[in-house]
Amino acid sequence: MRRTYISGFTGSAGTAVITKDKAALWTDGRYFLQAEKQLNSCWILMRAGNPGVPTTSEWLNDVLAPGGRVGIDPFLFSSDAAEELKQAIATKNHELVYLHDLNLVDEVWGESRPKPPKKPIRIHDLKYAGLDVASKLSSLRSELVDAGSSAIVISVLDEVAWLLNLRGSDVPHSPVMYAYLIVELDGAKLFMDNSKVTPEVMDHLKKAGIELRPYDCILTEIESLAAQGTHLWLDTSSVNAAIANTYKSACDKYMGSLGNKTTGQSNIYDSSNGQSGGPTGVYGLSPISLAKAVKNHAELEGMRNSHLRDAAALAQFWVWVEDEIHKDVKLTEVEVADKLLDFRSKQAGFIDTSFDTISASGANGAIIHYKPETESCAVVDAKKLFLLDSGAQYVDGTTDITRTVHFGEPTARQKECFTRVLQGHIALDQAVFPESTPGFVLDVFARSFLWKIGLDYRHGTGHGVGAALNVHEGPQSISFRYGNMTPLLRGMIVSNEPGYYEDHAFGIRIENLLYVKEVDTPNRFGGVGYLGFEKLTFVPIQSKLIDLSLLSAVEVDWLNDYHSQVWEKVSPLLDGSAHQWLWNNTRPLVK
Amino acid sequence: MRRTYISGFTGSAGTAVITKDKAALWTDGRYFLQAEKQLNSCWILMRAGNPGVPTTSEWLNDVLAPGGRVGIDPFLFSSDAAEELKQAIATKNHELVYLHDLNLVDEVWGESRPKPPKKPIRIHDLKYAGLDVASKLSSLRSELVDAGSSAIVISVLDEVAWLLNLRGSDVPHSPVMYAYLIVELDGAKLFMDNSKVTPEVMDHLKKAGIELRPYDCILTEIESLAAQGTHLWLDTSSVNAAIANTYKSACDKYMGSLGNKTTGQSNIYDSSNGQSGGPTGVYGLSPISLAKAVKNHAELEGMRNSHLRDAAALAQFWVWVEDEIHKDVKLTEVEVADKLLDFRSKQAGFIDTSFDTISASGANGAIIHYKPETESCAVVDAKKLFLLDSGAQYVDGTTDITRTVHFGEPTARQKECFTRVLQGHIALDQAVFPESTPGFVLDVFARSFLWKIGLDYRHGTGHGVGAALNVHEGPQSISFRYGNMTPLLRGMIVSNEPGYYEDHAFGIRIENLLYVKEVDTPNRFGGVGYLGFEKLTFVPIQSKLIDLSLLSAVEVDWLNDYHSQVWEKVSPLLDGSAHQWLWNNTRPLVK
Repeated sequence: MRRTYISGFTGSAGTAVITKDKAALWTDGRYFLQAEKQLNSCWILMRAGNPGVPTTSEWLNDVLAPGGRVGIDPFLFSSDAAEELKQAIATKNHELVYLHDLNLVDEVWGESRPKPPKKPIRIHDLKYAGLDVASKLSSLRSELVDAGSSAIVISVLDEVAWLLNLRGSDVPHSPVMYAYLIVELDGAKLFMDNSKVTPEVMDHLKKAGIELRPYDCILTEIESLAAQGTHLWLDTSSVNAAIANTYKSACDKYMGSLGNKTTGQSNIYDSSNGQSGGPTGVYGLSPISLAKAVKNHAELEGMRNSHLRDAAALAQFWVWVEDEIHKDVKLTEVEVADKLLDFRSKQAGFIDTSFDTISASGANGAIIHYKPETESCAVVDAKKLFLLDSGAQYVDGTTDITRTVHFGEPTARQKECFTRVLQGHIALDQAVFPESTPGFVLDVFARSFLWKIGLDYRHGTGHGVGAALNVHEGPQSISFRYGNMTPLLRGMIVSNEPGYYEDHAFGIRIENLLYVKEVDTPNRFGGVGYLGFEKLTFVPIQSKLIDLSLLSAVEVDWLNDYHSQVWEKVSPLLDGSAHQWLWNNTRPLVK
Repeated sequence: MRRTYISGFTGSAGTAVITKDKAALWTDGRYFLQAEKQLNSCWILMRAGNPGVPTTSEWLNDVLAPGGRVGIDPFLFSSDAAEELKQAIATKNHELVYLHDLNLVDEVWGESRPKPPKKPIRIHDLKYAGLDVASKLSSLRSELVDAGSSAIVISVLDEVAWLLNLRGSDVPHSPVMYAYLIVELDGAKLFMDNSKVTPEVMDHLKKAGIELRPYDCILTEIESLAAQGTHLWLDTSSVNAAIANTYKSACDKYMGSLGNKTTGQSNIYDSSNGQSGGPTGVYGLSPISLAKAVKNHAELEGMRNSHLRDAAALAQFWVWVEDEIHKDVKLTEVEVADKLLDFRSKQAGFIDTSFDTISASGANGAIIHYKPETESCAVVDAKKLFLLDSGAQYVDGTTDITRTVHFGEPTARQKECFTRVLQGHIALDQAVFPESTPGFVLDVFARSFLWKIGLDYRHGTGHGVGAALNVHEGPQSISFRYGNMTPLLRGMIVSNEPGYYEDHAFGIRIENLLYVKEVDTPNRFGGVGYLGFEKLTFVPIQSKLIDLSLLSAVEVDWLNDYHSQVWEKVSPLLDGSAHQWLWNNTRPLVK
C-alpha cells in the first residue's frame, strides 16, 4: 500500500526506488501494461527481466555519486534480501542504512495513512487442526535442542497461525494476523496488538504457556535474548532485516561487554560445553515450514470436506452461468466472479475467497494473473474460451481450482491445446514415484504432451497449499525451475495446473489440488515407499473441449473414472438444475 | 596397475591408502565381493558408500597422530581432488605432500614394473573428423581470448586426441595416447614420447603449427609459461595437481621477483589493461569438452555407418549363438563374448572393443558392471535371461549396445519387467523437449513405467559417447543425479539404457545410442527450437520378452517402425542365415 500511495501503481509486485531527483519502479511482465497506465511521467518504469533493464542495485550504482547512503525500511526486507542489496551497492561504496524508527513514505503520508487492521482473531478448532498447540510446541522445542539453539523467532505469518492454531483476517484472502512469535525452551511470547485478542483466545494462549507482548516490542525482546546469551534460530530467508540485524548487533555488544569484565568472573557460556563464549545465531530454514506442509489426518479431512462443498458451489455457479449466456445475458468478467462468490458464500464454513478470482474471457485468459476490474473488464464472450481460476477459505480448508470452458463451439486448435494440457494434467495426477523425489522431477510429465508439438507454458505446474491457510505455501513445488530439492512427502498438498496461453487469443489451464499419498505398489525396490497423488478437487472437466482422437484408452478411462467420482461425491450435495447439470457433465466418454 | 600391484585387487575403481602400520582399500559396491577375495589379511576393505564406512580423509584423520604428512602422486590426482583431500586432513593438522619426483609404489616395484605403452599413433582421417586441426585450434584460441587467457593446458586424453585429430592405443578400449597439450595464442606444444610419432604424424603436427616436446618436460614448460606472465586456462576438475600446483608456485615466484626489482623498472602487466600485475590462472571448465560433445556432420556420418556394420556383426553373432544353444552346445559367457569379438573384427575399420564386454547369464545380469573371467564365468543358460552389453571402436565411430534375450521361455515376471524397461526406453527415445533442457529432466521418462509397480534401477539412463573416441564422455548425461545442468544440444550423442536388476535372479537392460536433433514441431513456443533424438543403433529387440497387453498402440507402432528400419538398413549388409535371422526378428507385432 505504501508503494501504491507513493507511485500510483496498484500491482501486487514491485519495488519503488526514489533518489533526490529520480524515481523508478520495477515490476514484472504481468504488470507492464498496467504500470504504463498508472505511473505518471515522474516515474521511470523498469520492466524487470527484459533485456538491458538494470536491477535496483545496478541502477543505484549507476545513478548515485559514489559513497551514497541508501535507506530501506528493514521490516520490509528479508535479512537475505537486505544483505544482498548491501553487498551489491558496496561495490560503489554506497552504504545501506536501516531506518528502524521511521518509514519515509509514512512521513509523507502522515495522518491520512490508513490504520493497521485490527480485526479479532479466532481459534482454529482442534477438530480441523488435528494437533494441539502444546504438542506442536513440544515438537518444535525438540528440533531447537537438536540444532543447538535455545529459541526461535518466527515472523512468517502463516507459520505463526499454524503453530498457534489461530486464524486472523489482517491480510486479504489469507487467514493470518500480524504477529511475531518467539519460542524458547521454557516459554513463548506472541507479539501482537492485544486489541485483537478475545478472552477466549487469551485463554487458549495461556493454556499453551504463551505470553502476550505488544507488537512493537519485538526488537527489545530480541536484544534481551542476545543479552541473556540465547542461541537464536533465525531463518534469514524469511525473517526481516530489522530482527536479524538487531540480534547480531546485540550479540556483538554482549561479547564486547564480556571483554570488559575482569577475567576472573565466571562466564555461563564457556567453550567446555561445546559452544563459543557468547550467543550465536543458528541459521537454517524454519522447521515449521515443513511441519506445516505435511498435513495430518484432521487437516486432510477438512481439506476433503471443504473441497466437496466448494465443488457444489461451482456446480451451482456453472449451471447458472451457462443458462445466462445461453439466454444471451451480457455478463462481465467481474459480474461472473461476484456471482461465484455468492454461491460459495452460501456454503457452510465459508470465510473468504483464497485469492483474487481470475475470471478471463478470450484473450484475457492469456494473461496468467489477470485481475478483471469493474470499470475495464470484458464481457464474457460465448464464442471464446473462458478461464476461471478461483478458490475459497473455509473454516476447515482452502480451495484453488481452475476450469476452462467454451460456451459455444471451440476451434480445432483450441481443442488440440486443451487436450494436450489435459494429458499433462492426467500424467502428473497418475505419477508414481519413489520417496525422496523432489517435485521438479515430475514437472516434465505435465509438459511433455505440449512439447511434442512445440508448445509450453511459462509457469510452474504445482505449488503447495495450506490447510485453512494461505493458498500458496512452501517449501515444496513442482516446477521447471530445478532448484527446489524439497522432496514430496506423504500428506503434502500440491496444485496440478498445467496450461497453455496463446497471446492475444486465449488461455487454457486445468487445475486440481492433490495430496501426496503412499501407493500400494506390488514391489518396493530399494526398500523405499512409492508415492502418488489423491485428488481433492471434484468438478467436471468440459468434454466439449477434448479431441478424443488424441487421448489414449488409459486417458479416457482416467477421465471417466474422475467424472464418476465427481458424481458420486458431489451429487448428494446438490438438487434441481445443479444436480441435473452435474449428471449431464459427468457422463462417460466413449473413444 | 600400481593399485593392483600393491594390493592384489584388480577392480577398475578404488583407492589404496597405506600408513606405517595399516593398509586400507576403498572400492564401491560393484567390487565388494571381488575385493574380499583378492585382498589378503594385511588389507582393510573399505566398502565405500556403506553406512558407517569412513572416507579416506576421515580414516586418515582417525588413525594418524596429529601433524602427520600424507604423500600423494600429484600426477594421479586432479587438482580439485587433491585440494579437497588437503583441506579435509588439515583439520587434524596433517600436511598433504606432493611427491613430484618419485612414486612410492614404483620404488617398490622396481625393474619388474612394465614399461609404459609405446604403440604408434595414427591420424584420424579428416573425412571422419570433419574439421581440420587448424580450424579447431582457431576456435579454441578465440575462446581463450574471450576468457582473458593466453594459453591452455589440456591433460584429458580424449580432448587431446579430438583436438589434434590423432588416435592412439595406450589405453585399452579408448583410442587415445598419453600426452599433454599446451595451446598458446601463437603456437602449440604437444608433450609426448616421440617414439610414438611416425613421420606422417610429425608432418600432420607441423602443418598445424604444433611442436613436439618430451612428455616429462610438461612441468618445466608450465613454469616457463608462468615466468613469461602467461594467463593459463586451467580446468582444475580435470588437470592434475602437479600441473596446477607448479603453475601456482611459479606465479608466486614471479610476483616475488617483481617485488625485488627496483620500482622504476617497467612492468609488462600493469593494471591499466585491466589485469593484475602478474600471471593469474583462468579457472573454468575446458572449452574442448563441449566442442567435442557436439558432433559435426562427418562425425555423425561415421557414427551412423559404423553402427550399421556393428549391427551386421551382431546379427551374425545372434544367429550363431541361438544355433549353438539350440544344439545344446555349452558356451561360457567368455566364449560368447570372444565369438562376438570375432564377428566384429571382420567388419571394415574394426579396431578394438570399446569396453570390456558384459556377457551375463541369469543372476550375473544383475551385476551391473559384470566382467566374466575365463576361470570363473558361467555357462550361458538357455533357461535364463542373457544380458549382453558390448561395443566396438571402428575407424569411423564408436558403438555401445545392450540387448537382453531369452533362449527358452521367459517367466511372466521377466516379461513384465522387460516390457516396462522397453516402455521407458521408448518414452525417452520419443521425447521432444525445448532447447536448453538439461538431460536429467528426461531421466524420469525412462523410469516412470517401472515406478508404477515400485521398481527402479540404480544407474543413470544415458551417458555421452565419443565419435571414434571414448565410449563414455561428458559433459552431458541423462541421470537421476540432478546436478548436471549441461543442456542437451543438437549433435550430442547419448545412450538410452534403462534397466531392471533383480538381485540373484536376472538383469535386464535395453540400450541404443541416440543423437540429439532438431524436431520440426508445428509450433515453436517461446521462439526456441524443439529437440528430440534419432537412433544410431539398429539391432532387433526380442519380441518374445514383450508382454503385449502392457503396450499401448503407440508403443507397438514404435517397435514395428524400429524393426522395419532395422531390416531396411541392415539387411543389405547380410546374407545367408543372418539375413534370414534379421527377417524373422523384424516382423511386425500385432496387438
